Amino acid sequence: MKVGVVGASGYVGGELLRLLVTHPKVEVSMVTSRQKAGEYVQRVHPSLKGFIDLTFSPMDMEKLANNCDMVFTSVPHGKANKIVKDLYDRGIKIIDLSADFRLKNPKDYIKWYGWEHPFPDMLSKSVYGVPELHREEIKKAQLVSCPGCMAVTSLLALKPLIENNLIDTEHVVVDSKIGSSGAGQKANAGTHHAMRYGVVRPYKPAKHRHTGEIEQELSMIAKKQIKVSMSPHAVNIVRGILTTNHTFLKRKVEELELWKMYRNSYKGEPFVRLIRDKKGLYKFPDPKFVVGSNFCDVGFDIDEDNQRIVALSASDNLMKGAAGSAVQVMNVMFGYEETEGLKYTPLTPV
Amino acid sequence: MKVGVVGASGYVGGELLRLLVTHPKVEVSMVTSRQKAGEYVQRVHPSLKGFIDLTFSPMDMEKLANNCDMVFTSVPHGKANKIVKDLYDRGIKIIDLSADFRLKNPKDYIKWYGWEHPFPDMLSKSVYGVPELHREEIKKAQLVSCPGCMAVTSLLALKPLIENNLIDTEHVVVDSKIGSSGAGQKANAGTHHAMRYGVVRPYKPAKHRHTGEIEQELSMIAKKQIKVSMSPHAVNIVRGILTTNHTFLKRKVEELELWKMYRNSYKGEPFVRLIRDKKGLYKFPDPKFVVGSNFCDVGFDIDEDNQRIVALSASDNLMKGAAGSAVQVMNVMFGYEETEGLKYTPLTPV
Amino acid sequence: MKVGVVGASGYVGGELLRLLVTHPKVEVSMVTSRQKAGEYVQRVHPSLKGFIDLTFSPMDMEKLANNCDMVFTSVPHGKANKIVKDLYDRGIKIIDLSADFRLKNPKDYIKWYGWEHPFPDMLSKSVYGVPELHREEIKKAQLVSCPGCMAVTSLLALKPLIENNLIDTEHVVVDSKIGSSGAGQKANAGTHHAMRYGVVRPYKPAKHRHTGEIEQELSMIAKKQIKVSMSPHAVNIVRGILTTNHTFLKRKVEELELWKMYRNSYKGEPFVRLIRDKKGLYKFPDPKFVVGSNFCDVGFDIDEDNQRIVALSASDNLMKGAAGSAVQVMNVMFGYEETEGLKYTPLTPV
Amino acid sequence: MKVGVVGASGYVGGELLRLLVTHPKVEVSMVTSRQKAGEYVQRVHPSLKGFIDLTFSPMDMEKLANNCDMVFTSVPHGKANKIVKDLYDRGIKIIDLSADFRLKNPKDYIKWYGWEHPFPDMLSKSVYGVPELHREEIKKAQLVSCPGCMAVTSLLALKPLIENNLIDTEHVVVDSKIGSSGAGQKANAGTHHAMRYGVVRPYKPAKHRHTGEIEQELSMIAKKQIKVSMSPHAVNIVRGILTTNHTFLKRKVEELELWKMYRNSYKGEPFVRLIRDKKGLYKFPDPKFVVGSNFCDVGFDIDEDNQRIVALSASDNLMKGAAGSAVQVMNVMFGYEETEGLKYTPLTPV
Repeated sequence: MKVGVVGASGYVGGELLRLLVTHPKVEVSMVTSRQKAGEYVQRVHPSLKGFIDLTFSPMDMEKLANNCDMVFTSVPHGKANKIVKDLYDRGIKIIDLSADFRLKNPKDYIKWYGWEHPFPDMLSKSVYGVPELHREEIKKAQLVSCPGCMAVTSLLALKPLIENNLIDTEHVVVDSKIGSSGAGQKANAGTHHAMRYGVVRPYKPAKHRHTGEIEQELSMIAKKQIKVSMSPHAVNIVRGILTTNHTFLKRKVEELELWKMYRNSYKGEPFVRLIRDKKGLYKFPDPKFVVGSNFCDVGFDIDEDNQRIVALSASDNLMKGAAGSAVQVMNVMFGYEETEGLKYTPLTPV
Repeated sequence: MKVGVVGASGYVGGELLRLLVTHPKVEVSMVTSRQKAGEYVQRVHPSLKGFIDLTFSPMDMEKLANNCDMVFTSVPHGKANKIVKDLYDRGIKIIDLSADFRLKNPKDYIKWYGWEHPFPDMLSKSVYGVPELHREEIKKAQLVSCPGCMAVTSLLALKPLIENNLIDTEHVVVDSKIGSSGAGQKANAGTHHAMRYGVVRPYKPAKHRHTGEIEQELSMIAKKQIKVSMSPHAVNIVRGILTTNHTFLKRKVEELELWKMYRNSYKGEPFVRLIRDKKGLYKFPDPKFVVGSNFCDVGFDIDEDNQRIVALSASDNLMKGAAGSAVQVMNVMFGYEETEGLKYTPLTPV
Repeated sequence: MKVGVVGASGYVGGELLRLLVTHPKVEVSMVTSRQKAGEYVQRVHPSLKGFIDLTFSPMDMEKLANNCDMVFTSVPHGKANKIVKDLYDRGIKIIDLSADFRLKNPKDYIKWYGWEHPFPDMLSKSVYGVPELHREEIKKAQLVSCPGCMAVTSLLALKPLIENNLIDTEHVVVDSKIGSSGAGQKANAGTHHAMRYGVVRPYKPAKHRHTGEIEQELSMIAKKQIKVSMSPHAVNIVRGILTTNHTFLKRKVEELELWKMYRNSYKGEPFVRLIRDKKGLYKFPDPKFVVGSNFCDVGFDIDEDNQRIVALSASDNLMKGAAGSAVQVMNVMFGYEETEGLKYTPLTPV
Repeated sequence: MKVGVVGASGYVGGELLRLLVTHPKVEVSMVTSRQKAGEYVQRVHPSLKGFIDLTFSPMDMEKLANNCDMVFTSVPHGKANKIVKDLYDRGIKIIDLSADFRLKNPKDYIKWYGWEHPFPDMLSKSVYGVPELHREEIKKAQLVSCPGCMAVTSLLALKPLIENNLIDTEHVVVDSKIGSSGAGQKANAGTHHAMRYGVVRPYKPAKHRHTGEIEQELSMIAKKQIKVSMSPHAVNIVRGILTTNHTFLKRKVEELELWKMYRNSYKGEPFVRLIRDKKGLYKFPDPKFVVGSNFCDVGFDIDEDNQRIVALSASDNLMKGAAGSAVQVMNVMFGYEETEGLKYTPLTPV
């Protein structure tokens, strides 16, 4: 299958190429970048030297539609919707990695992104790209919108708790920690190594945009409106996310019962691993042990004193948090084995 | 004044020496270490080369009492209480950096530390060593017990909220992030660089011992029992703590009103800086900008959607979180200027 | 093919398993560890969770020989030779990752390792496991000894210079920089995160053991004795090596002529990439851009003022520096495609 | 004494302010910055919050001359010379932290910097600001030019070897490793955290500008022209330099004799520490153990096989490598105690 990648010069685009160049079912036929048009891909993504000979093309809808059986769009929020709409109207399957088609309610774009959605009718046609939540819909979709990196990680930790109606949905605290690649490729004073190295920097303690997605998806599961209190932090790693989801129980629950719920939620899921070890090095999810893979590791601890469940999840933000999810979605959409091109162990230690 | 340091071979002991060797009012007259007795201090703490010529002595109560006007004890939890008791009975002033005299209720030692306190009568004689909470008592104390590093950092973020009766005390979530020096000097599989580097590792999502101290001190302010939901995480730095304190408001509050409360709480405090900037590099507390100093930087954000206050605080765990607090307490106890020997700017960038 | 791994609990063993569990031609049938016998592999190597169900066995020669078509030995220097000898005598093909069969001259074991080799006759039967130097011999070998991580990296930078008789062989300076995983899994005071983080630590400025291998192999190419001045440094990464090889020219050489020599030396080599870019992010070899792959990136700069060539090379010490080389060697020995199971792009950014 | 800092918004300027605000003999009366004029200093250098209330002024020669007893200039190479000339002509004492007055031979500016020096007559009036080499001249100077960070570090390792005529001066290899703060404050694609983190990046293997200074100063000691082969590398730290100076002996030398030479060279020097320990954590110089201090730690190892001395030195590039040296020079110029305002222990661990 011939695939195109629109906006392939960023970190997510680069990661997508990294996965696609060795994916057995795929040939990358066109990659676009406004800023890097004409440049060799391997100059922008040096690690791909030897794996790809293409140069970046400028965006050209006609050429794209003619050259590609499907297209990944990986451009900034607000820049994707027009391109996606055009591709959609030409009948091409699209996996969008921006936020432009994640939210169902047009008003949420005003609230979280500050702009009015130009194609509100398209929102219902897009499927939220988490196979663990929407696998059957993805199979039939023409347009899938990949989730935010912290959103999908948090969702996978919380899903079993909501499904089982276990927790007080007024006090769901999502405290996230994320590496620098999550902020994208654009250099600025705050991402400069000497200033970014060694930080534990709260960067949006309230009103972070991923809150909207998490609320939407949890509410869908709960069949009622759920509020989420999210606060992300930049930490001194490049890849990886940990989400610490502090939730309060509505009733007592034993550890074994809770494990059973998690196992039921994720039975057969190829990319969710439940982490539970009283000894050994890996007692709770930690991005250290998923980096380079498409896994989302999930676990929890129970705080009886406060009737609190600390649900934990770890992922690689460029993999399960972005490009890995996108390839997983592609596999589902096109009927390939879901793990095709994604059989990566984590790279440990790194 | 001649001071002794019992247990000076660890990171906290080393930091204490670092501060004391340049403190204008102090002469370090004796340093002890069981493991390193006979060894030159500068071999164990190479950065002190040129600042101190002493060797470590074995513990010797008689010699200690004869040689020192006051003593810092910096030995592991459970090992300090006998030494402190002996020194106390000899009338010597002591600043203890272990947890052995932090808690007031003897039962709390069973709950949080798993052992029965051998000198329960001593607990009421010890003052909790946070001048911002107990300055007047410290001035008169013979024994002061320095706070846990995450405890003091969290307390300084939460104090104004509790004093002003602003928050729901059933849902106080303390999510901490801390560097590797906080785990002490003992090498093990989990602290080995290749395994510890790059982690975001939840290490005690429920029931961390510092919870007890925080609950005790907040309850004292609130004059009622308060429960705290604490979860610490190991992150990829050596020094520094960030505590993210998620709290829920009992009533609406405006940003300006809240700033006023914080300013009132910390008026004249030499080591609490309120951080508030809409632009610039330093919008919220971050250990990056306090490392090497005795500051605890405090700030907050308001999440109107959830009626949540995210109260944030950052400190250097070896300074304000341990040795710096101990020297500050010494200054208060002995009537020196409170900032004496502590006039360090943060070391940035590092 | 059924393979065994002796000594699989360390970092090199873990990396070998990581590669083998997804290698299409291989089934891992037995893994041994003295210290971890009985333990699940995934408890020791958490990133392999889901990829391997084996437990570590104690070393058992009989069982090993019966269960495996070939064996990797990954035990400490001095511990491998007896095991390898026994396997060899049973006619099993062996790839040894220790130093026990790298050196040809028995006296070199006394010089560099401080012990007399118990099986000096075996040394001539072992092939030094660098396909770029000894591919044809490897194809026919029963025993291959994989190179030291810094040795292979340096050798690949220097080979073209020696082959072309370009440099003064009295002043070959090899200045290496390596990550913490190169020091193995054993925790000690010097590898503790708080002490190892942020170092640029010279750890054996003279007489490092890899010197012996480099001298042996370069001398073989030059057909005369060559002395190497090697100094390794520990730097603040986990994976990766850079070797900076300072050499002095015997005659003037133009950049283009030199590139031609390098291209000739590595024509058709699947794992050597020549790095040369005047702009872009990747101007000279850097482990940042090879981590997770089996590449050794090679490049140089010319210092006309001093008639100096700075030959540079970068590799992932656990991949091309150890387990990746071992799998490459296995592919060569057994006639598989040389890149089988090794088609990994570098993982960037990480 | 009232001092001004021209160009105080960068890292070197910030470090200088950090030292000056607590220096007992100094009052900072004016700080300038073109880019940040009007901004509060503490917004640009958040760690100085509470230590300084000034805002940045635009450059104004008249005001500067009227307000300051002496001036530090800390602007980019090529921008300092005009300002320095003007201040000089007004009779003001100047310590310049750019390269504009480091080199004595005007031709060297064309060779290393690519421009013709506008005030070649001034070069002989400037003293190279390394008190360990030029203390007496500094005492009498009106203009001192502070050394390059890698240059001073390397010089202090090599000085005793040259003074004692011990080494072959045709093969002096200086392999440096330096943290990201050395590259200054300007963000670009290569300094972006995700791209700069984890590198071991050769950034100018030949023809680095500091070569010129090192050659000049060593030649002055040797009283003959010396060539230096320098190659710097960017490593994954923020502060700190290690220089590994590979030199070849002209005659045999014993370790003890060599130590004696080093001790003689640095007798009474307050900021040079000789590092020599067969056990313990600190066997050779390492920036880990000097960060935050003005020390340059110096040591060596002997490689008898190659008649090589590996001379090692470590410093904090913002301290001894820049601002610390500048304050040391100021103390010497003005007759203060040489360690005044510089009595900082290294900050370890950090």
